[in-house]
Amino acid sequence: MAEYTKIDAYLESHLDESIAELSRLVAQPSVGAQNLGMRECAELTASLLHRRGFSAEVMPTEGAPVVFAERKGKSDKTLLFYCHYDVQPAEPLELWETPPFEPSLRDGKLFGRGVSDDKGHITSRLFAIDALLADHPPGEDGELPCSIKFIIEGEEETSSVHLHEFILENKARLAADACIWEFGGVDHREAPIQYLGLRGICYVELSVETAATDVHSGLGGSIFPNAAWRLVWALNSLKGPDERIRLPGHYDKVRPPTIRDRELMAALPETSEVYKQQYGVESFIKGLTGGVDLRVEEIFTPTCTICGLTSGYQGPGSKTVQPAKASAKVDFRLVPDQDPKDVLKNLRTHLDNEGFQDVQITYLGGESPARTDPDHPFIRLVVESAGEIYGVPMQIMPMSGGSGPNYPFVHDLGLPVATAGLGYPDGRGHAPNENIRLDLYLKHAKHMARVIREFA
Amino acid sequence: MAEYTKIDAYLESHLDESIAELSRLVAQPSVGAQNLGMRECAELTASLLHRRGFSAEVMPTEGAPVVFAERKGKSDKTLLFYCHYDVQPAEPLELWETPPFEPSLRDGKLFGRGVSDDKGHITSRLFAIDALLADHPPGEDGELPCSIKFIIEGEEETSSVHLHEFILENKARLAADACIWEFGGVDHREAPIQYLGLRGICYVELSVETAATDVHSGLGGSIFPNAAWRLVWALNSLKGPDERIRLPGHYDKVRPPTIRDRELMAALPETSEVYKQQYGVESFIKGLTGGVDLRVEEIFTPTCTICGLTSGYQGPGSKTVQPAKASAKVDFRLVPDQDPKDVLKNLRTHLDNEGFQDVQITYLGGESPARTDPDHPFIRLVVESAGEIYGVPMQIMPMSGGSGPNYPFVHDLGLPVATAGLGYPDGRGHAPNENIRLDLYLKHAKHMARVIREFA
Repeated sequence: MAEYTKIDAYLESHLDESIAELSRLVAQPSVGAQNLGMRECAELTASLLHRRGFSAEVMPTEGAPVVFAERKGKSDKTLLFYCHYDVQPAEPLELWETPPFEPSLRDGKLFGRGVSDDKGHITSRLFAIDALLADHPPGEDGELPCSIKFIIEGEEETSSVHLHEFILENKARLAADACIWEFGGVDHREAPIQYLGLRGICYVELSVETAATDVHSGLGGSIFPNAAWRLVWALNSLKGPDERIRLPGHYDKVRPPTIRDRELMAALPETSEVYKQQYGVESFIKGLTGGVDLRVEEIFTPTCTICGLTSGYQGPGSKTVQPAKASAKVDFRLVPDQDPKDVLKNLRTHLDNEGFQDVQITYLGGESPARTDPDHPFIRLVVESAGEIYGVPMQIMPMSGGSGPNYPFVHDLGLPVATAGLGYPDGRGHAPNENIRLDLYLKHAKHMARVIREFA
Repeated sequence: MAEYTKIDAYLESHLDESIAELSRLVAQPSVGAQNLGMRECAELTASLLHRRGFSAEVMPTEGAPVVFAERKGKSDKTLLFYCHYDVQPAEPLELWETPPFEPSLRDGKLFGRGVSDDKGHITSRLFAIDALLADHPPGEDGELPCSIKFIIEGEEETSSVHLHEFILENKARLAADACIWEFGGVDHREAPIQYLGLRGICYVELSVETAATDVHSGLGGSIFPNAAWRLVWALNSLKGPDERIRLPGHYDKVRPPTIRDRELMAALPETSEVYKQQYGVESFIKGLTGGVDLRVEEIFTPTCTICGLTSGYQGPGSKTVQPAKASAKVDFRLVPDQDPKDVLKNLRTHLDNEGFQDVQITYLGGESPARTDPDHPFIRLVVESAGEIYGVPMQIMPMSGGSGPNYPFVHDLGLPVATAGLGYPDGRGHAPNENIRLDLYLKHAKHMARVIREFA
């Protein structure tokens, strides 16, 4: 690995500068759900790319703008990085040890909303590019080993509503040979993981309004429809304690895991005890206790999750009021070949059939599931180069339990998509005290430098 | 009615003084839920009674003190007035046209928190007593026609948590022959209403905690129990769309309405269209459309109302998170002879039997239902004397849909309890711009003077 000595030395000696750059990016809030600071963050992100000689453009969509950037390199190969500059809401604020948008460094970790998901990935990849550009013979200009493009969207945390259309409209400019995804990381044993695909999602808000105002429960509770009850019954009709989703035909297009999938899952470490400790859960659903069955359930089964409920009085003590309104946030995770548009249609049909015409559906976003072949040469390259950095082989997970806009990259741009990143199990993505470990930030930059050079 | 000419003249010519006294009482905040000014208001209330020659005492409880007062009268009969000096929180303050604790007189109405519920009832009843004491032959001292006792509690707006115990401990001192309740008033046709009892209530918070932290729904939604789902399923097990409450034995002690009850309900005005317009509802539950069946349903059926739901993400847009916690506020309205303690016990048994050992129950208060016979002589007296004042017959509602501490008065003290008051449909009790009409204040005082004298 002598060829990387210089690059690694550069990365090790410039880490502080890259973390300072990340801190500036995190200090710019960009909460998509709250439409907070989106354009400002897109402009700031574009400026980071300009600084590396990329032609970077903030391109409009009907939602948050997309940052697109490219810079030519020596070889005729093109690597596309997909990242996002938007972050999850920081609430509940009172659980943060330091304010979410004032990045704070302690114990070798940087804390702040978006440090891991996904701003740290943006800056660590730029950091790898800095190292590659700095590695040139005296008297020559730095040059990239291959052409590199970045597509950095602003709606990843809100289901990438406009990304698919953007990709279809800009297919030629986005043309590439392979793609590195926005996330990745190590598991609890410090082994890097390769997630070969993403589940899809259909995210909806269900809402009911039964009256113009809340009513004293002594009257309303006796004779008026109760919005909260209507919502509870409608939700209950979607899934019961057996965890089976009751939408018509919901499982028809589900492809069960293959023998190769189960082999890959069986090669993964046992995580049941880790999960229990990390999340403070006592047991798993469906009577699962661990082993390959639990790991398969993690990924290959469609889910229906209530992400939020709200109605009526939620303060301390009692208030005798019948609420006029109630709503729930619900996400359906989808596996190949389920389609979010089908789910939305079937959900309306189901609610109507069950007598819940009064339950409104607001579609908050959806994505189709997609996967990449675990035996693709690009995947092998990413996996093998990781082993050198992390000291243990990269594990292959045939799909991620999460969702993302994998589908247009795999099916419209025709790219193999590999994951790699700086995440780790206690990174608290989407939660208070989101953080990254600086050692993993550095490792990811080293890994990316290798991937770019070897891919070239 | 010649015998009331002098009394009525006294009340008409001294109205301003009584309203000034009410204004001073309202200006003393006494918000139980916020523990604001409770003792000060109890002392002020006691001083108003002292001024009329009552032995008034501020008696401690484990919560807010109770004001107890009595004064002997000519006959051997004793009338007990039940009132309360505590008020609902004034929030939201910005919706008040004038500050809630600075009583304001305009358009023949007095505005302020507690003017109607319940401080106006205290001072208008004292005003009636003033008129009776002033009505004596020259050279003699004023005397009450019968003995009068007041029990004025400070926890009515917070479920009268300590009142039952207080009554049991002071049964002898509270001994009386009949009781006038803290509220009453006219309906939208200006007809006075006699509510002959109150439903009971059992108010609980159901809560579930399935993990130590919220978890990304891509992982948690696949394999961890979801607190919001657990809550939805537990709630659904309590009552389905058929509105039947599924607790074991919940209806066993329910006394159905008698033929007399249905007669009384049939004599009440049709309110279905009024309700629809006032509350903006399109239809009633159980396919009810109006008439006596709707009115019977309003009162005689046990209810189970979700008053609030809370879990996970409730902001705009989407957040893909599986919530660790979920909770619901639920009230059960009870009819004779249901018992809140039974409900609480059966609720635990039911949840356990249905597999919801993980659902915690927090008891937030309860009261037993109680009724008074509509044909009791005291009720007849109150009803008949109202007709003279209001010009239309007092309507009899055999029970109120609301709840209150009626049970210890009816069953421990053995009293017939009549309602009478100064309320009207636009009085905005519990809401901003609470107000009373001065004409109804005067009528209530006249009514009370007649009730006291005729009861004696």
